[in-house]
Amino acid sequence: MAVVRRTARDIRSDSRLDVLHVVLSSSEITRNEIAQVTGLSAATVATVVGELLAVGILVETKVSLGLVGRPTATLAMNPAGGSVVGIDVAETYVRAFLFDTALNQVGFVEIERDEHLLAPDLMVDMIGEALDRLLEQEQVDRDQVRGVGVSLPGLVHSSAGPSVLVPHWAWRTVDLEHLRERVALPLVIDNPLKAIATAELWLGRGRFCSNLVTVNLGTGVGAAILLEARIARGATNSAGEWGHSLLVLDGRPCRCGRAGCVEAYVGVPGIQQTLREIDPEHALLDIDLQRDFIGAMAAAAEADEPDPAVSETIARTSYFLGAALADLVAIINPEAVTLTGWTAWALGEHLLPAVRQHVREQAPGLSGSDLELAMSTVRGNSVATGVATLALERYLADEGLITTRTPLAL
Amino acid sequence: MAVVRRTARDIRSDSRLDVLHVVLSSSEITRNEIAQVTGLSAATVATVVGELLAVGILVETKVSLGLVGRPTATLAMNPAGGSVVGIDVAETYVRAFLFDTALNQVGFVEIERDEHLLAPDLMVDMIGEALDRLLEQEQVDRDQVRGVGVSLPGLVHSSAGPSVLVPHWAWRTVDLEHLRERVALPLVIDNPLKAIATAELWLGRGRFCSNLVTVNLGTGVGAAILLEARIARGATNSAGEWGHSLLVLDGRPCRCGRAGCVEAYVGVPGIQQTLREIDPEHALLDIDLQRDFIGAMAAAAEADEPDPAVSETIARTSYFLGAALADLVAIINPEAVTLTGWTAWALGEHLLPAVRQHVREQAPGLSGSDLELAMSTVRGNSVATGVATLALERYLADEGLITTRTPLAL
Repeated sequence: MAVVRRTARDIRSDSRLDVLHVVLSSSEITRNEIAQVTGLSAATVATVVGELLAVGILVETKVSLGLVGRPTATLAMNPAGGSVVGIDVAETYVRAFLFDTALNQVGFVEIERDEHLLAPDLMVDMIGEALDRLLEQEQVDRDQVRGVGVSLPGLVHSSAGPSVLVPHWAWRTVDLEHLRERVALPLVIDNPLKAIATAELWLGRGRFCSNLVTVNLGTGVGAAILLEARIARGATNSAGEWGHSLLVLDGRPCRCGRAGCVEAYVGVPGIQQTLREIDPEHALLDIDLQRDFIGAMAAAAEADEPDPAVSETIARTSYFLGAALADLVAIINPEAVTLTGWTAWALGEHLLPAVRQHVREQAPGLSGSDLELAMSTVRGNSVATGVATLALERYLADEGLITTRTPLAL
Repeated sequence: MAVVRRTARDIRSDSRLDVLHVVLSSSEITRNEIAQVTGLSAATVATVVGELLAVGILVETKVSLGLVGRPTATLAMNPAGGSVVGIDVAETYVRAFLFDTALNQVGFVEIERDEHLLAPDLMVDMIGEALDRLLEQEQVDRDQVRGVGVSLPGLVHSSAGPSVLVPHWAWRTVDLEHLRERVALPLVIDNPLKAIATAELWLGRGRFCSNLVTVNLGTGVGAAILLEARIARGATNSAGEWGHSLLVLDGRPCRCGRAGCVEAYVGVPGIQQTLREIDPEHALLDIDLQRDFIGAMAAAAEADEPDPAVSETIARTSYFLGAALADLVAIINPEAVTLTGWTAWALGEHLLPAVRQHVREQAPGLSGSDLELAMSTVRGNSVATGVATLALERYLADEGLITTRTPLAL
């Protein structure tokens, strides 16, 4: 039985989370506006805001004097409550971002990775080194850090506990206790899709629509799913592995071992394969790094005289992506689908017009025709932002300032 | 903002729904056992049970005297609270089932349909006629009927209100007000996938696992999705249209207009097509009605000397179904997948062993290896049972006896 016990104290605490979401999403807002947006009573908003001001999570930013009546204070998240860190561990880099407690990004370091060095201990060292360098560079004391969030690709959670399963990274054995010791600060870990879903829920379209899918396009591809304003995690925290659903039964080999996966068509190596099928001798295929390849594709697409092979690759990729998104839309029926990830930021505007048309033609009935399909509104690194948000949420929960019905990260 | 206002009264009322679910799922249960399963306090259970006894929703079925202490009463749903009706409108029939208020099935009528007569008014008449005949046959007065649930394929809900979109049924214009007038009893309508999800949640594996997918196999195919013990409806009530997600890009034409949909491979016409590809002259292809075809397939599969073309058709169908389920598992990551629908009841045991193996091999990591894959435990017509359950739920909500956080049917 999935029964959730609810007490009056939980409700008060939920109201705090609702108020925080609203304040965070609207840089400055009055108590009256909070009551309107949340549906909470003016009295509840006054109480909750008072509590959050008292503990320093919120601040009053300015007081405006109207012609009549009492002065009205504007509220915002308090950036002076300390720091949180979000670390994005990806195929080709480890990036660490520093945020204040209003989730403004205030610092950044990157450690480049050799894509071929995959030992778990090495990864733990790189994460630790990125954190140390970030705090040193930004001159932040460790006791000012409220929490550290780390996004690990392939992180799943079974009844036996969390583990990281990235077959082609040889990461099956990653020692999370070792990571916890190395970081030596309050730590949450999650996988990139759940981090992206968190960023969308707190800072993106998830504030305005309850059912949202954000697809992450890069070397690999996946879907961050919000349903009824909750992050869909699934039984083992691996919901959203849309990249390893089929586009073509028995189609192109995928690095996961299956054949015909979406990722084998719209992940970067899939886009390279499409270009190879169109022109096996094309000069862009000689580019060593994926990021440079995608950058060159975007440059060619924007050139005065478009390269026909590049145009055809973009057309086919739009067709593949549109068909694969139509499948997601058929199954999930979200209000909106948004795109994020470094491929999307480089090529998204070239893909979107045709992708929209393919989804509208292929997704069933209203699920396609009523759908909003656009770039994500969360800019910057939404994996790092999301996992830092999870770290802040965990801190607020640990301090007893909020409860949440959404299971928090590990 | 998706903010849910919660009051102390809602919590009391939620507790009632939790208690009802537990009582319904366990034919007989004591107050202590309810407290254990729900996590509610003994005092809350005592209060809620008292209220539900007072209004006649629950009854005490027997009192057992232990060697020590007070006598212990066993509780059950009260079947004497009236009747509810569930009506399943499908391609080839309209079936109406009578249930008591403990959701025991007590009567049944069927009206056969000519698959080619599709006018909406005719459908409304058939639904009304099925209801009238059922009540007459079972000698139930209309004022004893607490609610009528009708499952309509293709029912969606947009901001403009509910409508039925079944392109090949020419049903775009169905007049729901006309249906409401003809039934002339408290009416809920929903689509078959949401009805099946409700049946699974109240009476099936959904009682024990929070994340469940039940696939419905018949002429068409679809997925009923429970996430965190809530029915996934999506933005326009069309979540679960897995039958119209791709198995093969640009593959077999589907009746929805798309090419390569799952339904075109594992729906009954898809299974017929597979047999046709194996042996275009096969005798089973001369059978006129789909139901007779599937019955003959099952008989051939169970024969002492199996028909090689039938065996090969079952093997290929298992491969198609396994691959398509692996996609659902990749995206949803449920704890369990169960099969229902008339094709599943006829052929499921022949398909399951190979389907299990294909899903385990193709779904990512733990999402496949930890998955339970089995026939549904909801027997009988789970569409009718589910939509009758929605009618009962609506009645209890209208009477102020429960609230639910799951949006009810229309």
